[in-house]
Amino acid sequence: MRREMAEQPATVAALIERRDDIRSRLAPLFKGIAGTVVVARGSSDHAATYGRYLLEMATGRPVASASPSVHLLYGAEMDFHDYAVVAVSQSGRTPEITATLRWAAENGARTVALTNDEESPLAEAADEVVALGAGAEQAVPATKTVTAALVAFALIADALGGLEIPGRAWDELPGQLEAVLEDHEPAAELAAWLAPASRLVTIARGLLLGAAAETALKIEETSGTLATAYSAADLRHGPIAIAGSGVPVLALAHPGPAAADVTGLATELAERGASVRLIGPVAGTRATWSATAPEILAPVLAVVRGQQVALELALALGRDPDSPRGLTKITLT
Amino acid sequence: MRREMAEQPATVAALIERRDDIRSRLAPLFKGIAGTVVVARGSSDHAATYGRYLLEMATGRPVASASPSVHLLYGAEMDFHDYAVVAVSQSGRTPEITATLRWAAENGARTVALTNDEESPLAEAADEVVALGAGAEQAVPATKTVTAALVAFALIADALGGLEIPGRAWDELPGQLEAVLEDHEPAAELAAWLAPASRLVTIARGLLLGAAAETALKIEETSGTLATAYSAADLRHGPIAIAGSGVPVLALAHPGPAAADVTGLATELAERGASVRLIGPVAGTRATWSATAPEILAPVLAVVRGQQVALELALALGRDPDSPRGLTKITLT
Repeated sequence: MRREMAEQPATVAALIERRDDIRSRLAPLFKGIAGTVVVARGSSDHAATYGRYLLEMATGRPVASASPSVHLLYGAEMDFHDYAVVAVSQSGRTPEITATLRWAAENGARTVALTNDEESPLAEAADEVVALGAGAEQAVPATKTVTAALVAFALIADALGGLEIPGRAWDELPGQLEAVLEDHEPAAELAAWLAPASRLVTIARGLLLGAAAETALKIEETSGTLATAYSAADLRHGPIAIAGSGVPVLALAHPGPAAADVTGLATELAERGASVRLIGPVAGTRATWSATAPEILAPVLAVVRGQQVALELALALGRDPDSPRGLTKITLT
Repeated sequence: MRREMAEQPATVAALIERRDDIRSRLAPLFKGIAGTVVVARGSSDHAATYGRYLLEMATGRPVASASPSVHLLYGAEMDFHDYAVVAVSQSGRTPEITATLRWAAENGARTVALTNDEESPLAEAADEVVALGAGAEQAVPATKTVTAALVAFALIADALGGLEIPGRAWDELPGQLEAVLEDHEPAAELAAWLAPASRLVTIARGLLLGAAAETALKIEETSGTLATAYSAADLRHGPIAIAGSGVPVLALAHPGPAAADVTGLATELAERGASVRLIGPVAGTRATWSATAPEILAPVLAVVRGQQVALELALALGRDPDSPRGLTKITLT
């Protein structure tokens, strides 16, 4: 897992170099769409959560998340004309993801696969493929393929215009990832704080929500700790009741319009009895990343910080992060 | 909370009586749409999760869940022409929900409000209002308004055709709710089982997913226990790693195409070390509801079973279920 995490700056740099190719193939596919549907599970679905925000902003049209059971269990008929459908799967071999993409295509969708295997059934079924190009991933907890999927969504959204991600921000991203990876002491400190916990909560708002969900999942996979991600807004609608029980809360924030909501909630949770730590370039934490990255790319850096915490936590608990008990690399759902 | 729960059969019966009015006003609004967007938080969002499945099946077009931050934080411009936007809020007074509906309307959406207050800002902003008609709700954990929102979604979807809910099923629903409410001993048994836990997981698949999420939230609100809902399919993509730690798992199932996935996963989780209990008219549990209800209406019954467990758990823990610590009836996000 650590070795594959270390490959992320190079994987991301290679994807960014393919920016023009991605633009020329994907921009026409999204032209004039009524909406987009994403199809994914697990870590890929967290990349898709980030992708939903970006694609709504870039296309100006709603983005839905597919429920494969609508077709696969209930046999509903649907019409996907004028929709772009983007399926994300590291292996490209999760049967329900491929079946859902095929069904959408048969019913009028223009389809895109984000996958690490260009020869997978998912890639073969799609109109356009964005190969993640991360190389073989052996550790069960996905790391470099997740980061690559996030970057692929950002490149696609950027290709559609309207997001205004400066070229400089793309150029600096691999180096910013490198800086996070080299600085693992803050993650080890957070792992020591989390080691006694049997449960924890991650919170974020807006663009960082997918990174909060992915951090929670990485921790569940490597440590067996129940970890739940909440939007700061959703937490206020009821789940905040758990703060009094002293639950550990990991709050992800980056300077920008969403930060005040998260840091404000972090303070409130601490006052109610929760044990709260922040991650990101905001006051009160060493587990940070480049403050000069635009908020729109910050989730790529945040996901890597989360991986680091999950890895250090597994090591602190004496577990093997590469082969969590009872998980396999390709999930057959 | 117990008194308001007891009102649910009457609230639901009254809503069902307004079926023709709902059909005549709502069916034209959904005519020829490209898609639907739901806008909600908390318990209302769990009703909307159920609504997303029903509306995808009934309209044959994708249903997205709005991220209010896309507009409210990031100021993105979006085009909602040819979209129906359905906002759900018990109070009709959560500012971001009303602001998001208004923004969608200004950008071309046809809008619907499901709310318990016909004179709320949300109701005033919408083209059509489906009043939940549940009467004043005083307990902080929403119960009768949630059930009413589920039924409102089912009535709207039924009005659009294609779901084939038999008239008899509607007629029998209030009596089936009554039967669940009168049978609280199984819920008390589950509460005794959950009382020592600091965390738990609920699982379901497909139509019951919203009920699993609502059950988790009710338990968090009344007991302060961290409770997380997973789709059976999502759980297999990583979070299943937590089973080995003996976490309690409450599995919701109803006879139909989704049942085998959930009961199969329940068995697997138990084999891995989790402490698993089933809810629903399947083998191995007393916490059941009518097996003759069609699966499409079963979530209404499941939500009430979940409320019962949350109520009994609060009482078992010596907490006041009506006024959970730190929560208020109207959430200002």
